[in-house]
Amino acid sequence: MKSYFRKEIDAIAGYTAGEQPKIANLIKLNTNENPYPPSPAVAAALREFDIARLRRYPDPFADELRDIFAADCNVKRDNVIVGNGSDDLLTMCFRGFTSPEHPVAVFEPSYSLYPVLAAMQGAPVIKVALEGDDFAYPRDISAQTASANLLVITRPNAPTGNVCPKSLVREYCENFDGMVLIDEAYGDFAEDNCMDLAAEYENVIVMRTFSKSCSMAGVRLGYAVSSTTVIAGLMKLKDSYNSDMLSQIVAKANYLDKAYRNECIAAIRRDRDLMRDGLLELGFAVPASQANFLFAAPPDGDGEAAFRYLRENAVLVRYFKGDVTGRYIRITIGTPEENLRVMELLKARYA
Amino acid sequence: MKSYFRKEIDAIAGYTAGEQPKIANLIKLNTNENPYPPSPAVAAALREFDIARLRRYPDPFADELRDIFAADCNVKRDNVIVGNGSDDLLTMCFRGFTSPEHPVAVFEPSYSLYPVLAAMQGAPVIKVALEGDDFAYPRDISAQTASANLLVITRPNAPTGNVCPKSLVREYCENFDGMVLIDEAYGDFAEDNCMDLAAEYENVIVMRTFSKSCSMAGVRLGYAVSSTTVIAGLMKLKDSYNSDMLSQIVAKANYLDKAYRNECIAAIRRDRDLMRDGLLELGFAVPASQANFLFAAPPDGDGEAAFRYLRENAVLVRYFKGDVTGRYIRITIGTPEENLRVMELLKARYA
Repeated sequence: MKSYFRKEIDAIAGYTAGEQPKIANLIKLNTNENPYPPSPAVAAALREFDIARLRRYPDPFADELRDIFAADCNVKRDNVIVGNGSDDLLTMCFRGFTSPEHPVAVFEPSYSLYPVLAAMQGAPVIKVALEGDDFAYPRDISAQTASANLLVITRPNAPTGNVCPKSLVREYCENFDGMVLIDEAYGDFAEDNCMDLAAEYENVIVMRTFSKSCSMAGVRLGYAVSSTTVIAGLMKLKDSYNSDMLSQIVAKANYLDKAYRNECIAAIRRDRDLMRDGLLELGFAVPASQANFLFAAPPDGDGEAAFRYLRENAVLVRYFKGDVTGRYIRITIGTPEENLRVMELLKARYA
Repeated sequence: MKSYFRKEIDAIAGYTAGEQPKIANLIKLNTNENPYPPSPAVAAALREFDIARLRRYPDPFADELRDIFAADCNVKRDNVIVGNGSDDLLTMCFRGFTSPEHPVAVFEPSYSLYPVLAAMQGAPVIKVALEGDDFAYPRDISAQTASANLLVITRPNAPTGNVCPKSLVREYCENFDGMVLIDEAYGDFAEDNCMDLAAEYENVIVMRTFSKSCSMAGVRLGYAVSSTTVIAGLMKLKDSYNSDMLSQIVAKANYLDKAYRNECIAAIRRDRDLMRDGLLELGFAVPASQANFLFAAPPDGDGEAAFRYLRENAVLVRYFKGDVTGRYIRITIGTPEENLRVMELLKARYA
């Protein structure tokens, strides 16, 4: 059959999301979901919701949420845009800022969706390699990224978990002559964040998601903060009603319960550091993580074998093929019981 | 400030959605929402929903819904894709099938979002004019559309309400050498539909939405049916988790209550035809409508004045500027009480 698609679309394989298997009793630590449920306030919000409202379109701008996020980030409503998950916001940025004549620069390894979004735009991808076993950020990237119109910094980085030092992020922002997108999907698990740079530099956009720290991967909600001109441009690119009514309502109820969320985050950070200590004792190489996962290389450097071994024992983690990434598995931090089971299995094989 | 966007994005004004005003006691007949609430089954589904599930990503493919739609449309799961509203599916199609070298052909007037989506792609738009006071579809469009890679047929058409005869749709499909997108957002209010053409022709895609006949504009759910290769290509273009968990759950509960939905549809069709008779008596020009709205030109041909008059009287309808469209207002069919109020107001001014 003849293809009716643009050649760029035919050429790409598409993004491979982590598995969402329907297997009972599986310990699922492969997509960095939060092991704790969202706030009980969500159940109350749903109970009170009048379903007759669903016949109407939702607020196309999600202004109630924008005001809440703006207040938290010390900016104005017009500095904030809400997306159907931060994937939606990433799509808008790649559509707006990349093209065959507008390359994107990303670090390697980082979120594997970025090159797929670039390919859809026919945009060249400049890959800046992270250095050494701790995946360090190179000091001077200006020559390598000179032709790019978009630079993406994932902070904390996925799948490695480490962070680019904030002073270096600032240097990148000052020296880069295009948009700098700071993807803080895992920012709530880190020791600091870069939200203030979105107010400080007109070419910086900082992005957050409800999928990780907010226990709401199922809801699809993200937001981004930038200068008013950048937000106004992204508004033109978004689907008119990209965020649905129920998502806006449950996201609001959940977000306002900060005490509960902070407890969950603290537990995950504590258990992440405990698990890292355990893995180091077993001889794993594990970069220090500020996210809700660990990137861990078994002593034999065979990530795929570790992935398969755990899967055979009903524990699903993530494995990324590749010369460097193939030595590792990425383990999402689960409940204490889940983490214990992972460590038992790994001890049985690697101790 | 320097713009970081591609020039195509800076050049567009963006799509203007119908107002969603927060005014009490307003009769809102401007965005073709359903006047009736969704099925009571939706409230039951929400009551039973365990919010702990929200911490997980949703089914990225919405397979439960795909199977339900596939069964209804006499196709297989792989012939169906689910979108975050049909706007999401339209975006995928424009990204996949249009570019500066891949023009799109649309009828004029039709849904004003299409040219905006084309502009984002830098794709030329070929406008095929509908003819005369009944907005008739021209028989032979092959010369005019020869360079296009995508042809969009809105059926019933918006904002005019009339339908392209199915035999003529079939001729277009056979003679057009690109993808034919049949947008059936209002298809459930019509006397027939073109879903069978999606199975018959490999270059046809038929799209449906929950925003109109299903009383779920707030939920953002749409689906499209086409050949397996076209659906596979669109899957590469969609955000991985474009449809959220709650949307999938409430959409399923609502969709399965067909008896209720069909009652609502029957009431709207009946009231549409009654209102059209009333408008014709007042001297309005009103093309026969198979949608849930009427496109109505007052006797003086001043659509804007009629729009303002109704707005001053707390009734919001839709007005589209333009030499032809400016003579009309588009009135969504509301409840019998709402429709009565509209007719009272129009009688007071035009009788």
